[in-house]
Amino acid sequence: MEILANGSVTSPRGFSAGATYCGLKTGGLDLCIVYSEHPCTAAGVFTRNRVQAAPIAVCREHLRRGRVQGFVANSGNANACTGEPGVANAREMAALAAARVGLEQDQMLVASTGVIGVPLDMDKVRRGLQSIQLSPEGGHEAARAIITTDTTTKEIAVSLDMEGCTITIGGMCKGSGMIHPNMGTMLAFLTTDAAAEPAFLQEALHQAVDATFNMVTVDGDTSTNDTAVVLANGAAANPVLSADSPSARAFQEALTSVCQYLAIAIARDGEGASKLLTVTVRGAESLSDARLAARTVAGSSLFKAAVYGADPNWGRILAAAGRSGAMVDQTKADIWIGDVALMQGGRILPFDRQQAAANMKGAEVNVLVDLHLGTAEATAWGCDLTERYVEINAEYTT
Amino acid sequence: MEILANGSVTSPRGFSAGATYCGLKTGGLDLCIVYSEHPCTAAGVFTRNRVQAAPIAVCREHLRRGRVQGFVANSGNANACTGEPGVANAREMAALAAARVGLEQDQMLVASTGVIGVPLDMDKVRRGLQSIQLSPEGGHEAARAIITTDTTTKEIAVSLDMEGCTITIGGMCKGSGMIHPNMGTMLAFLTTDAAAEPAFLQEALHQAVDATFNMVTVDGDTSTNDTAVVLANGAAANPVLSADSPSARAFQEALTSVCQYLAIAIARDGEGASKLLTVTVRGAESLSDARLAARTVAGSSLFKAAVYGADPNWGRILAAAGRSGAMVDQTKADIWIGDVALMQGGRILPFDRQQAAANMKGAEVNVLVDLHLGTAEATAWGCDLTERYVEINAEYTT
Repeated sequence: MEILANGSVTSPRGFSAGATYCGLKTGGLDLCIVYSEHPCTAAGVFTRNRVQAAPIAVCREHLRRGRVQGFVANSGNANACTGEPGVANAREMAALAAARVGLEQDQMLVASTGVIGVPLDMDKVRRGLQSIQLSPEGGHEAARAIITTDTTTKEIAVSLDMEGCTITIGGMCKGSGMIHPNMGTMLAFLTTDAAAEPAFLQEALHQAVDATFNMVTVDGDTSTNDTAVVLANGAAANPVLSADSPSARAFQEALTSVCQYLAIAIARDGEGASKLLTVTVRGAESLSDARLAARTVAGSSLFKAAVYGADPNWGRILAAAGRSGAMVDQTKADIWIGDVALMQGGRILPFDRQQAAANMKGAEVNVLVDLHLGTAEATAWGCDLTERYVEINAEYTT
Repeated sequence: MEILANGSVTSPRGFSAGATYCGLKTGGLDLCIVYSEHPCTAAGVFTRNRVQAAPIAVCREHLRRGRVQGFVANSGNANACTGEPGVANAREMAALAAARVGLEQDQMLVASTGVIGVPLDMDKVRRGLQSIQLSPEGGHEAARAIITTDTTTKEIAVSLDMEGCTITIGGMCKGSGMIHPNMGTMLAFLTTDAAAEPAFLQEALHQAVDATFNMVTVDGDTSTNDTAVVLANGAAANPVLSADSPSARAFQEALTSVCQYLAIAIARDGEGASKLLTVTVRGAESLSDARLAARTVAGSSLFKAAVYGADPNWGRILAAAGRSGAMVDQTKADIWIGDVALMQGGRILPFDRQQAAANMKGAEVNVLVDLHLGTAEATAWGCDLTERYVEINAEYTT
């Protein structure tokens, strides 16, 4: 697998994209279309929040029809908690974007991020969509059009050989920056020129998302708009991927790598974050236990504050793992911060506090917990909890 | 039910208490004994964290024997993650305290709170226990001896008439103040001169704790030491309480009231808190749904930061309820902040933002969510998320 220089969602063959500023966001591109000139297999994974934004209902419907060939997304307004008119607006946005590139309404997915509870200004959307020019180099513009308070765009593309063909997977996402004035949203868009069966693609996306985006925690709040979609247009002319393909595993690994890169970028760019926190739990009884424990440690406000203060506070790590729901035996656990072992077999080691603290002062803090109960392992990504997080989110916005 | 002036755990007849400074904590009383001159019925509820402190193992054992007549508690050291020697120390602490008041080891419960992973200095404990003088006015001293970074003691006593007798329930607790250098702990000790059957007392305590202490969230971290115990010594000479007693309900309500008062005191005194946040969810499909939704809203970092900033951010309330796991229909919910309705039937009202913000500027912020799906109701208590929380917990302590 090779990471492409300057990769984006238009790196795979047959994809083009374009963006514009239509006035939904204060400054910067805020509306984009990504389009495949070939028919696609598409798959999506959406927020588990019971409160779901209007575009998600439309995406589910269009994915069921099985004809999706592009997506349209805006930032600055989440089109969430906007009732039936919101769903009608999401439908119209999909229809207008589809018409712009010669498709029908149900061939276009739609996503929104930004303020919730405010009707989408459809005049701006209509004018904006008219002015979008698509090109095979448009991926970076699209990546800029979906971010809100993210401090950087998040994009990547990789390529790999597969049964004599080279296939490429591109991806972009926006993270849990606070969206004025309401909530953070994770949007991830993946494109590939691989050919894949729908069921395989859906399962591959699920597995990739479970191991990556679902292992990112910034503040524990799940948004109403979280969306991850993948379009596979088959332009690479590889033998169509299915669960039995010789290349199925290589494709899964590449897709997961792309998602992992993007997920880590989200954690690193968490609101107010000064450090990336990586928590690996191994020796768990089951994968779900490993994930639960890793996510709970990475999401503990107490431990996140300790990371900010570079305090090698192993007690908070063990306590978070203990309350996660995962099986934990306090007489067996090992805990490491970077290369310093703090606890072994449940006993506190006379560790070098200065070295342990030094391991927490850089831009990346790595924690390893070995539960010594089984063979399952998982990694979660998060960030430290800073005064800046509180400032950002306490800001008086109404 | 009457709230007693100056109530404490020694308000019920037959209880005495005493405390001392033995040097486990920096300054202030740090070791106490509470003792009943009559045999007691006792019950306990302990942390669900899989990592549990040594005293908890000893408490469970002594409760099973059914002879408990007092408890000993220290602050400054949690005796957690201290292995087998820690359990031996907890046993010895119980034995020494028991001997001090003429009981046997298994008649004494034991609790600790403070730094974890550090062996209890038993020389200090031994000397301290020797110097404790018990008196029927000792309750307030005991309440001081269990606090750590709590800014106030938390105590109360109530009395009520019950089948011709007056019974009294006293209680004290310590909250989720940060404990140097590791974790917060909730310890609650309840005393009563009512006579009660063991099974009834255990169930009453469970119900009270589920509706009160388990509905308090300061930062979502559950400690290794959380403990709530009740001793009932029967000195009021009431007909022994059982589930069928005419007074069972009145006793349950009084016990729950005492726990609720103490639980709210913990939330109000949360680390760095400037405001008490009360979240009531009604119209839920089930009690567990109501509790889940209320706790999740009260514990949302995003909403807690908005409370700090007095931002009537209804989107964060709805999104937190939506991700809680409780059934939520976004087209039905009403949301109120104080006396201002922000959302009705899922539609955003043109509410008075200045009035809503004003309702968030005092020391108490009240949120009401009506899900309109059923008849269940629950209340959770929390506090705002402030820069001070981050400062306290990021403090470099090692």
